[in-house]
Amino acid sequence: MGLTKNFAFLVFCCQRYCSMDGEAFEISLLDGEEDRFGGTVVNLMEVESMTIGDFDSKLDVSLKAWKDQGKKGIWIKLPSELSSLVDTAIKKGFTYHHAENEYVMLTFWLPEPPSTLPCNASHRIGIGAFVLNKNGEMLVVQENSGYFKDKNVWKVPTGTIKEGESIWAGAVREVKEETDIDAEFVEVLSFMESHQAVWQRKTDIFFVCELEARTFEIQKQDSEIHAAKWMPVEEYVNQPYHNKEGNEMFKLIANICLKRSREKYTGFVLTTNSAKKSLYCSVDHANLLKETADQASTSLSD
Amino acid sequence: MGLTKNFAFLVFCCQRYCSMDGEAFEISLLDGEEDRFGGTVVNLMEVESMTIGDFDSKLDVSLKAWKDQGKKGIWIKLPSELSSLVDTAIKKGFTYHHAENEYVMLTFWLPEPPSTLPCNASHRIGIGAFVLNKNGEMLVVQENSGYFKDKNVWKVPTGTIKEGESIWAGAVREVKEETDIDAEFVEVLSFMESHQAVWQRKTDIFFVCELEARTFEIQKQDSEIHAAKWMPVEEYVNQPYHNKEGNEMFKLIANICLKRSREKYTGFVLTTNSAKKSLYCSVDHANLLKETADQASTSLSD
Repeated sequence: MGLTKNFAFLVFCCQRYCSMDGEAFEISLLDGEEDRFGGTVVNLMEVESMTIGDFDSKLDVSLKAWKDQGKKGIWIKLPSELSSLVDTAIKKGFTYHHAENEYVMLTFWLPEPPSTLPCNASHRIGIGAFVLNKNGEMLVVQENSGYFKDKNVWKVPTGTIKEGESIWAGAVREVKEETDIDAEFVEVLSFMESHQAVWQRKTDIFFVCELEARTFEIQKQDSEIHAAKWMPVEEYVNQPYHNKEGNEMFKLIANICLKRSREKYTGFVLTTNSAKKSLYCSVDHANLLKETADQASTSLSD
Repeated sequence: MGLTKNFAFLVFCCQRYCSMDGEAFEISLLDGEEDRFGGTVVNLMEVESMTIGDFDSKLDVSLKAWKDQGKKGIWIKLPSELSSLVDTAIKKGFTYHHAENEYVMLTFWLPEPPSTLPCNASHRIGIGAFVLNKNGEMLVVQENSGYFKDKNVWKVPTGTIKEGESIWAGAVREVKEETDIDAEFVEVLSFMESHQAVWQRKTDIFFVCELEARTFEIQKQDSEIHAAKWMPVEEYVNQPYHNKEGNEMFKLIANICLKRSREKYTGFVLTTNSAKKSLYCSVDHANLLKETADQASTSLSD
């Protein structure tokens, strides 16, 4: 974490070579910045063009220099525009680390294994929204595509958290998108980890969020949603789907919603929230911590 | 989710062309399988070699055929061995979707934007382990590298959840690795989302897990850990670090640990757990749900 922060030194130098006719010439190393784990990061995002031959020779002398310097992990960030260089790096021993639309990140662990390079993003986060109206009914939908299509199962609005989005905000957004209902985040009731759920290897964490409806007239989103309505919680829980083999966890989640609608259930509320950080903790303690954040440890220690 | 499951049909056909000398020849399309979202997945992981020229011409006729068929998202999974083909695909309009050590996944959204292709893994999951011994002291460490190096701050053992690993299991593993202490997972006390924490764009979710120590003699891991010991919870909370500006969330988390060590705190326990799924919910309701999983909805509705 934080690998791309706090680069301490810029590494840049040349290596002197002799051409076939004996004339001395220099091949410059690839520009790299040290990370704080003893590695080097070569960021080519701002480089508009580089020939395969140029990259090939620079990478050779750079790898030699990095090994001599005792470097550990080498990172090369290649923009889509330089996709012609991917093959050269892979052939020299680099492996893919991760990729986003506009770039691919390649790595080379120079010392003996095992590599301690940080792993790629490993999880995807989903939400299910348990939205109650003033009559204690919950918001349910049927979807146009995917697993539940044509199964006549009423489900809670669900969705995937976008990059950089908070769980509470994603739940509010999905409810608005699918049903046009404005709702306020109340708490996280439960969460479920499902392994090998994404690309047959990534883990999905599904947060069940309770929301309180602020508007009540449903306007369903036609592209994704086949039907949407308010439904008594008992009716939702007692759908045959929840009693089928293999659906035990969904039944447990449904029962948590039922409990929450009838009695106190101690979920995790949003305690503090800033642009970049959100902390969720037990509703029983959230207020005290919030009100006395500055003095809490002192007063608790008295 | 589940995009790679349930492929319905194998798509394979040829297109007839005329060579320069008028002789008819055929270029076969790339093998692809339909996904259930109207797209096609071309998996080249088992293909040992393909020339750039061969790939280039097959991709041209395939793209034309897929467009004619009204296909939406096209996926090409290229193993490292075929890295020479990456450039060709990118030049024809594909973009990177994600990559793992052994492959890169490329996508092409054929209809009008916006693309509804599922996003890449977006999160990394970390844990902090609040481990108590029989005397009510907590396990703390100082690290050899990273942000806290040489800062003289005692922190809880932390780490990153590995691909396919559960939160509770990762917490137990990290404690064992860093201190050789055997501990049992008790509950999740809190969790914190930090945006742009990984690669300046991915979100980190940090789960604070309470564990109960089963062994008490610390053997620190030399490579990562500078020092490790048992410490009174108050002493941990009252470190100057927790009162510095910008560390408010860490102080809140420390105070949650202090509360937990002194009184009832309602965290999320592991309710049910299978090889692929783990459900965490409020400790107040976990036992009831567990014991009566089959009858819960009926009895609750009575």
